[in-house]
Amino acid sequence: MAHIALKEGLPGITGGFDFRPETAKPMRELAHILLHEPSTLTGGERELIATYVSSLNDCFFCQASHGAAAAAHLNSHLGEDGEQVVAEVKAAPDAAPVSAKLKALLVIAGKVQSDGKHVTPDDVAAARAEGATDLEIHDTVLIAAAFCMYNRYVDGLGTWQPRDPNAYREMGRHLAQKGYRTPSGE
Amino acid sequence: MAHIALKEGLPGITGGFDFRPETAKPMRELAHILLHEPSTLTGGERELIATYVSSLNDCFFCQASHGAAAAAHLNSHLGEDGEQVVAEVKAAPDAAPVSAKLKALLVIAGKVQSDGKHVTPDDVAAARAEGATDLEIHDTVLIAAAFCMYNRYVDGLGTWQPRDPNAYREMGRHLAQKGYRTPSGE
Repeated sequence: MAHIALKEGLPGITGGFDFRPETAKPMRELAHILLHEPSTLTGGERELIATYVSSLNDCFFCQASHGAAAAAHLNSHLGEDGEQVVAEVKAAPDAAPVSAKLKALLVIAGKVQSDGKHVTPDDVAAARAEGATDLEIHDTVLIAAAFCMYNRYVDGLGTWQPRDPNAYREMGRHLAQKGYRTPSGE
Repeated sequence: MAHIALKEGLPGITGGFDFRPETAKPMRELAHILLHEPSTLTGGERELIATYVSSLNDCFFCQASHGAAAAAHLNSHLGEDGEQVVAEVKAAPDAAPVSAKLKALLVIAGKVQSDGKHVTPDDVAAARAEGATDLEIHDTVLIAAAFCMYNRYVDGLGTWQPRDPNAYREMGRHLAQKGYRTPSGE
Protein backbone atom coordinates (compact mmCIF):
# COMPACT_ATOMS: atom_id res chain seq x y z
CA MET A 1 0.00 0.00 0.00
CA ALA A 2 1.22 3.45 -0.85
CA HIS A 3 2.37 5.73 2.00
CA ILE A 4 -0.37 8.27 1.21
CA ALA A 5 -3.90 7.97 -0.20
CA LEU A 6 -3.13 7.43 -3.88
CA LYS A 7 -5.90 6.16 -6.15
CA GLU A 8 -5.93 2.36 -6.39
CA GLY A 9 -4.79 0.65 -9.57
CA LEU A 10 -2.58 3.42 -10.95
CA PRO A 11 0.91 1.97 -11.48
CA GLY A 12 4.07 3.69 -10.34
CA ILE A 13 4.45 7.37 -11.09
CA THR A 14 0.91 7.65 -12.46
CA GLY A 15 -0.38 7.37 -8.87
CA GLY A 16 1.67 10.41 -7.82
CA PHE A 17 0.74 12.31 -10.99
CA ASP A 18 -2.97 11.71 -10.33
CA PHE A 19 -2.61 12.83 -6.70
CA ARG A 20 -0.91 16.14 -7.57
CA PRO A 21 -1.67 17.23 -11.16
CA GLU A 22 0.02 20.61 -10.62
CA THR A 23 3.46 19.04 -10.18
CA ALA A 24 2.70 16.25 -12.68
CA LYS A 25 2.51 18.77 -15.52
CA PRO A 26 6.12 20.07 -15.42
CA MET A 27 7.42 16.58 -14.55
CA ARG A 28 5.70 15.15 -17.65
CA GLU A 29 6.88 18.06 -19.77
CA LEU A 30 10.50 17.59 -18.72
CA ALA A 31 10.39 13.86 -19.57
CA HIS A 32 8.73 14.61 -22.91
CA ILE A 33 11.42 17.10 -23.94
CA LEU A 34 14.30 14.91 -22.76
CA LEU A 35 13.06 11.56 -24.06
CA HIS A 36 10.61 12.21 -26.87
CA GLU A 37 11.18 15.50 -28.69
CA PRO A 38 13.55 15.51 -31.70
CA SER A 39 17.19 15.02 -30.70
CA THR A 40 20.43 13.82 -32.26
CA LEU A 41 20.22 10.99 -29.71
CA THR A 42 17.61 8.43 -30.76
CA GLY A 43 14.60 7.71 -28.58
CA GLY A 44 16.07 4.27 -27.93
CA GLU A 45 19.40 5.74 -26.78
CA ARG A 46 17.70 8.20 -24.43
CA GLU A 47 15.40 5.54 -22.98
CA LEU A 48 18.44 3.29 -22.45
CA ILE A 49 20.09 6.07 -20.41
CA ALA A 50 16.88 6.46 -18.36
CA THR A 51 16.61 2.69 -17.88
CA TYR A 52 20.25 2.30 -16.89
CA VAL A 53 19.99 5.03 -14.24
CA SER A 54 16.70 3.60 -12.95
CA SER A 55 18.39 0.22 -12.72
CA LEU A 56 21.28 1.70 -10.70
CA ASN A 57 18.66 3.29 -8.42
CA ASP A 58 16.89 -0.08 -8.23
CA CYS A 59 13.51 1.44 -9.11
CA PHE A 60 11.44 -1.45 -10.43
CA PHE A 61 8.67 0.57 -12.07
CA CYS A 62 10.96 3.01 -13.90
CA GLN A 63 13.41 0.44 -15.19
CA ALA A 64 10.53 -1.79 -16.36
CA SER A 65 8.52 0.99 -18.03
CA HIS A 66 11.46 2.83 -19.61
CA GLY A 67 13.15 -0.47 -20.44
CA ALA A 68 9.98 -1.41 -22.32
CA ALA A 69 9.98 1.99 -24.06
CA ALA A 70 13.65 1.52 -25.03
CA ALA A 71 12.88 -1.97 -26.37
CA ALA A 72 9.93 -0.64 -28.35
CA HIS A 73 12.12 2.05 -29.94
CA LEU A 74 14.89 -0.43 -30.74
CA ASN A 75 12.47 -3.01 -32.14
CA SER A 76 10.71 -0.53 -34.38
CA HIS A 77 13.72 1.43 -35.60
CA LEU A 78 16.57 -1.02 -35.81
CA GLY A 79 15.03 -4.44 -36.08
CA GLU A 80 17.00 -5.44 -33.00
CA ASP A 81 15.94 -7.65 -30.13
CA GLY A 82 15.21 -4.63 -27.98
CA GLU A 83 14.61 -6.49 -24.74
CA GLN A 84 17.96 -8.26 -25.06
CA VAL A 85 19.79 -4.96 -25.65
CA VAL A 86 18.09 -3.43 -22.59
CA ALA A 87 19.11 -6.42 -20.46
CA GLU A 88 22.72 -6.19 -21.66
CA VAL A 89 22.94 -2.43 -21.03
CA LYS A 90 21.65 -2.93 -17.48
CA ALA A 91 24.04 -5.82 -16.80
CA ALA A 92 27.24 -4.42 -18.35
CA PRO A 93 26.92 -1.26 -20.46
CA ASP A 94 30.56 -1.35 -21.60
CA ALA A 95 30.00 -4.76 -23.21
CA ALA A 96 26.49 -4.10 -24.58
CA PRO A 97 25.72 -3.95 -28.31
CA VAL A 98 25.41 -0.14 -28.43
CA SER A 99 27.57 2.56 -30.03
CA ALA A 100 30.85 3.73 -28.51
CA LYS A 101 29.26 7.17 -28.12
CA LEU A 102 26.36 5.78 -26.10
CA LYS A 103 28.77 3.73 -23.97
CA ALA A 104 30.68 6.92 -23.13
CA LEU A 105 27.43 8.73 -22.31
CA LEU A 106 26.32 5.84 -20.08
CA VAL A 107 29.57 6.25 -18.12
CA ILE A 108 28.65 9.91 -17.51
CA ALA A 109 25.06 8.95 -16.60
CA GLY A 110 26.33 6.38 -14.10
CA LYS A 111 28.58 8.97 -12.45
CA VAL A 112 25.70 11.47 -12.23
CA GLN A 113 23.53 8.78 -10.62
CA SER A 114 25.98 8.44 -7.74
CA ASP A 115 26.98 12.14 -7.52
CA GLY A 116 27.31 14.80 -10.21
CA LYS A 117 30.73 15.67 -8.84
CA HIS A 118 32.00 12.24 -9.91
CA VAL A 119 31.89 13.28 -13.59
CA THR A 120 35.45 14.10 -14.69
CA PRO A 121 36.86 16.12 -17.59
CA ASP A 122 38.22 12.80 -18.90
CA ASP A 123 34.71 11.29 -18.94
CA VAL A 124 33.49 14.25 -20.97
CA ALA A 125 36.54 14.17 -23.28
CA ALA A 126 35.93 10.45 -23.91
CA ALA A 127 32.34 11.16 -24.94
CA ARG A 128 33.45 14.02 -27.22
CA ALA A 129 36.07 11.73 -28.80
CA GLU A 130 33.22 9.43 -29.81
CA GLY A 131 31.35 12.34 -31.38
CA ALA A 132 29.09 13.48 -28.52
CA THR A 133 28.07 17.14 -28.72
CA ASP A 134 27.71 19.52 -25.79
CA LEU A 135 23.93 19.26 -26.09
CA GLU A 136 24.08 15.47 -25.99
CA ILE A 137 26.32 15.60 -22.92
CA HIS A 138 23.98 18.15 -21.30
CA ASP A 139 20.93 16.01 -21.97
CA THR A 140 22.67 12.87 -20.70
CA VAL A 141 23.51 14.64 -17.43
CA LEU A 142 19.95 15.91 -17.14
CA ILE A 143 18.27 12.59 -18.03
CA ALA A 144 20.40 10.90 -15.37
CA ALA A 145 19.65 13.64 -12.83
CA ALA A 146 15.93 13.66 -13.66
CA PHE A 147 15.65 9.90 -13.18
CA CYS A 148 17.23 10.30 -9.76
CA MET A 149 14.10 12.39 -9.10
CA TYR A 150 11.51 10.18 -10.82
CA ASN A 151 12.91 7.01 -9.21
CA ARG A 152 12.84 8.51 -5.71
CA TYR A 153 9.35 9.91 -6.25
CA VAL A 154 8.00 6.52 -7.34
CA ASP A 155 9.69 4.63 -4.51
CA GLY A 156 9.38 7.32 -1.83
CA LEU A 157 5.58 7.37 -2.14
CA GLY A 158 5.46 3.58 -1.92
CA THR A 159 3.54 3.38 -5.22
CA TRP A 160 2.02 0.19 -6.60
CA GLN A 161 4.45 -1.40 -9.07
CA PRO A 162 3.08 -4.38 -11.02
CA ARG A 163 5.62 -7.20 -11.23
CA ASP A 164 4.41 -8.83 -14.47
CA PRO A 165 6.69 -7.83 -17.40
CA ASN A 166 3.69 -8.05 -19.73
CA ALA A 167 2.13 -5.13 -17.86
CA TYR A 168 4.97 -2.94 -19.15
CA ARG A 169 5.19 -3.98 -22.82
CA GLU A 170 2.07 -2.12 -23.93
CA MET A 171 3.06 0.83 -21.70
CA GLY A 172 6.48 0.90 -23.37
CA ARG A 173 5.01 0.88 -26.89
CA HIS A 174 2.66 3.70 -25.95
CA LEU A 175 5.47 5.80 -24.41
CA ALA A 176 7.74 5.19 -27.41
CA GLN A 177 5.01 6.35 -29.80
CA LYS A 178 3.27 9.13 -27.89
CA GLY A 179 5.74 10.39 -25.31
CA TYR A 180 5.06 11.81 -21.90
CA ARG A 181 3.11 15.03 -22.24
CA THR A 182 -0.43 13.77 -21.64
CA PRO A 183 -1.83 11.27 -19.15
CA SER A 184 -2.96 9.02 -22.00
CA GLY A 185 0.71 8.87 -22.97
CA GLU A 186 1.54 6.84 -19.88
CA MET B 1 35.47 25.38 -15.88
CA ALA B 2 32.18 23.74 -16.72
CA HIS B 3 32.21 20.42 -18.61
CA ILE B 4 30.35 21.96 -21.57
CA ALA B 5 30.29 25.47 -23.08
CA LEU B 6 28.08 27.27 -20.56
CA LYS B 7 28.00 31.07 -20.63
CA GLU B 8 30.61 32.58 -18.28
CA GLY B 9 29.51 34.26 -15.08
CA LEU B 10 26.20 32.47 -14.59
CA PRO B 11 26.25 30.78 -11.19
CA GLY B 12 25.16 27.18 -10.62
CA ILE B 13 21.94 26.05 -12.19
CA THR B 14 21.48 29.34 -14.07
CA GLY B 15 24.31 28.25 -16.41
CA GLY B 16 22.42 25.07 -17.34
CA PHE B 17 19.12 26.93 -17.61
CA ASP B 18 20.67 29.43 -20.01
CA PHE B 19 22.20 26.63 -22.11
CA ARG B 20 18.91 24.73 -22.55
CA PRO B 21 15.87 27.02 -22.04
CA GLU B 22 13.47 24.26 -23.15
CA THR B 23 14.28 22.08 -20.15
CA ALA B 24 14.76 25.09 -17.86
CA LYS B 25 11.10 25.99 -18.17
CA PRO B 26 9.55 22.87 -16.57
CA MET B 27 12.41 22.67 -14.05
CA ARG B 28 11.70 26.25 -12.94
CA GLU B 29 7.98 25.60 -12.89
CA LEU B 30 8.35 22.53 -10.68
CA ALA B 31 10.50 24.44 -8.18
CA HIS B 32 8.05 27.34 -8.19
CA ILE B 33 5.06 25.11 -7.39
CA LEU B 34 6.90 23.12 -4.73
CA LEU B 35 8.69 25.98 -2.99
CA HIS B 36 6.80 29.19 -3.71
CA GLU B 37 3.10 28.66 -4.43
CA PRO B 38 0.67 28.71 -1.50
CA SER B 39 1.01 25.67 0.76
CA THR B 40 0.25 24.67 4.33
CA LEU B 41 4.03 24.33 4.70
CA THR B 42 5.67 27.75 4.96
CA GLY B 43 8.19 28.89 2.37
CA GLY B 44 10.84 28.68 5.08
CA GLU B 45 9.93 25.06 5.90
CA ARG B 46 10.02 24.03 2.26
CA GLU B 47 13.34 25.79 1.62
CA LEU B 48 14.77 24.08 4.72
CA ILE B 49 13.80 20.69 3.25
CA ALA B 50 15.47 21.66 -0.05
CA THR B 51 18.56 22.93 1.76
CA TYR B 52 18.84 19.84 3.97
CA VAL B 53 18.67 17.48 0.97
CA SER B 54 21.18 19.63 -0.97
CA SER B 55 23.45 19.47 2.04
CA LEU B 56 23.20 15.66 2.16
CA ASN B 57 24.06 15.64 -1.56
CA ASP B 58 26.95 18.01 -0.83
CA CYS B 59 25.87 20.44 -3.56
CA PHE B 60 27.48 23.75 -2.64
CA PHE B 61 25.43 26.00 -4.92
CA CYS B 62 22.03 24.56 -3.99
CA GLN B 63 22.60 24.46 -0.25
CA ALA B 64 23.95 28.04 -0.33
CA SER B 65 21.19 29.48 -2.54
CA HIS B 66 18.27 27.62 -0.94
CA GLY B 67 19.80 28.07 2.50
CA ALA B 68 19.81 31.81 1.81
CA ALA B 69 16.19 31.62 0.61
CA ALA B 70 15.22 29.71 3.76
CA ALA B 71 17.00 32.30 5.93
CA ALA B 72 15.25 35.13 4.09
CA HIS B 73 11.84 33.52 4.69
CA LEU B 74 12.60 32.86 8.35
CA ASN B 75 13.97 36.36 8.93
CA SER B 76 10.98 38.06 7.35
CA HIS B 77 8.21 35.88 8.74
CA LEU B 78 9.33 34.83 12.18
CA GLY B 79 11.94 37.33 13.25
CA GLU B 80 14.33 34.44 13.76
CA ASP B 81 18.03 34.33 13.03
CA GLY B 82 17.43 32.50 9.77
CA GLU B 83 21.03 31.69 8.99
CA GLN B 84 21.49 30.10 12.41
CA VAL B 85 18.37 27.95 11.96
CA VAL B 86 19.61 26.81 8.54
CA ALA B 87 23.00 25.88 9.98
CA GLU B 88 21.37 23.90 12.79
CA VAL B 89 19.03 22.02 10.44
CA LYS B 90 21.97 21.04 8.25
CA ALA B 91 24.08 19.94 11.22
CA ALA B 92 21.45 18.05 13.25
CA PRO B 93 17.83 18.38 12.14
CA ASP B 94 16.46 16.46 15.13
CA ALA B 95 17.96 19.04 17.51
CA ALA B 96 17.23 22.13 15.41
CA PRO B 97 14.75 24.85 16.53
CA VAL B 98 12.00 23.77 14.13
CA SER B 99 8.57 22.21 14.71
CA ALA B 100 8.13 18.51 15.48
CA LYS B 101 6.20 18.20 12.22
CA LEU B 102 9.08 19.61 10.19
CA LYS B 103 11.53 17.33 12.01
CA ALA B 104 9.43 14.32 11.03
CA LEU B 105 9.26 15.55 7.42
CA LEU B 106 13.04 16.06 7.38
CA VAL B 107 13.45 12.40 8.39
CA ILE B 108 11.37 11.41 5.34
CA ALA B 109 13.33 13.81 3.11
CA GLY B 110 16.62 12.33 4.31
CA LYS B 111 15.42 8.81 3.52
CA VAL B 112 14.29 9.88 0.04
CA GLN B 113 17.71 11.46 -0.56
CA SER B 114 19.42 8.10 -0.06
CA ASP B 115 16.71 5.92 -1.68
CA GLY B 116 12.93 6.32 -1.79
CA LYS B 117 12.57 2.72 -0.64
CA HIS B 118 14.11 3.66 2.70
CA VAL B 119 10.93 5.54 3.70
CA THR B 120 8.96 3.32 6.08
CA PRO B 121 5.31 3.30 7.15
CA ASP B 122 6.60 4.25 10.62
CA ASP B 123 8.31 7.37 9.21
CA VAL B 124 5.03 8.39 7.59
CA ALA B 125 3.01 7.58 10.71
CA ALA B 126 5.39 9.71 12.79
CA ALA B 127 4.85 12.68 10.45
CA ARG B 128 1.08 12.19 10.56
CA ALA B 129 1.18 12.04 14.37
CA GLU B 130 2.71 15.54 14.30
CA GLY B 131 -0.10 16.77 12.06
CA ALA B 132 1.39 16.31 8.58
CA THR B 133 -1.20 15.87 5.83
CA ASP B 134 -0.92 13.55 2.84
CA LEU B 135 -0.24 16.56 0.62
CA GLU B 136 2.55 17.76 2.91
CA ILE B 137 4.08 14.27 2.91
CA HIS B 138 3.74 14.08 -0.88
CA ASP B 139 5.42 17.45 -1.34
CA THR B 140 8.21 16.57 1.09
CA VAL B 141 8.94 13.40 -0.91
CA LEU B 142 8.87 15.36 -4.16
CA ILE B 143 10.99 18.29 -2.90
CA ALA B 144 13.60 15.77 -1.70
CA ALA B 145 13.43 13.84 -4.98
CA ALA B 146 13.57 17.01 -7.09
CA PHE B 147 16.66 18.29 -5.27
CA CYS B 148 18.35 14.98 -6.03
CA MET B 149 17.84 16.11 -9.65
CA TYR B 150 18.78 19.78 -9.27
CA ASN B 151 21.87 18.95 -7.21
CA ARG B 152 23.13 16.39 -9.76
CA TYR B 153 22.40 18.75 -12.65
CA VAL B 154 24.39 21.58 -11.05
CA ASP B 155 27.34 19.36 -10.11
CA GLY B 156 27.22 17.03 -13.13
CA LEU B 157 27.67 19.96 -15.54
CA GLY B 158 30.59 21.28 -13.48
CA THR B 159 28.90 24.68 -13.14
CA TRP B 160 30.59 27.73 -11.63
CA GLN B 161 29.63 27.99 -7.94
CA PRO B 162 30.74 31.20 -6.20
CA ARG B 163 32.18 30.47 -2.75
CA ASP B 164 31.45 33.84 -1.11
CA PRO B 165 28.34 33.57 1.16
CA ASN B 166 27.53 37.20 0.37
CA ALA B 167 26.94 36.19 -3.24
CA TYR B 168 23.97 34.12 -2.06
CA ARG B 169 22.23 36.50 0.37
CA GLU B 170 20.73 38.74 -2.31
CA MET B 171 19.88 35.65 -4.40
CA GLY B 172 18.09 34.13 -1.40
CA ARG B 173 16.03 37.28 -0.75
CA HIS B 174 15.05 37.44 -4.40
CA LEU B 175 14.04 33.73 -4.49
CA ALA B 176 12.06 34.07 -1.25
CA GLN B 177 10.13 37.05 -2.64
CA LYS B 178 9.71 36.19 -6.32
CA GLY B 179 10.06 32.44 -6.60
CA TYR B 180 11.43 30.41 -9.46
CA ARG B 181 9.23 30.85 -12.49
CA THR B 182 11.18 33.51 -14.38
CA PRO B 183 14.90 33.94 -14.99
CA SER B 184 14.84 37.24 -13.11
CA GLY B 185 13.65 35.24 -10.12
CA GLU B 186 17.03 33.58 -9.75
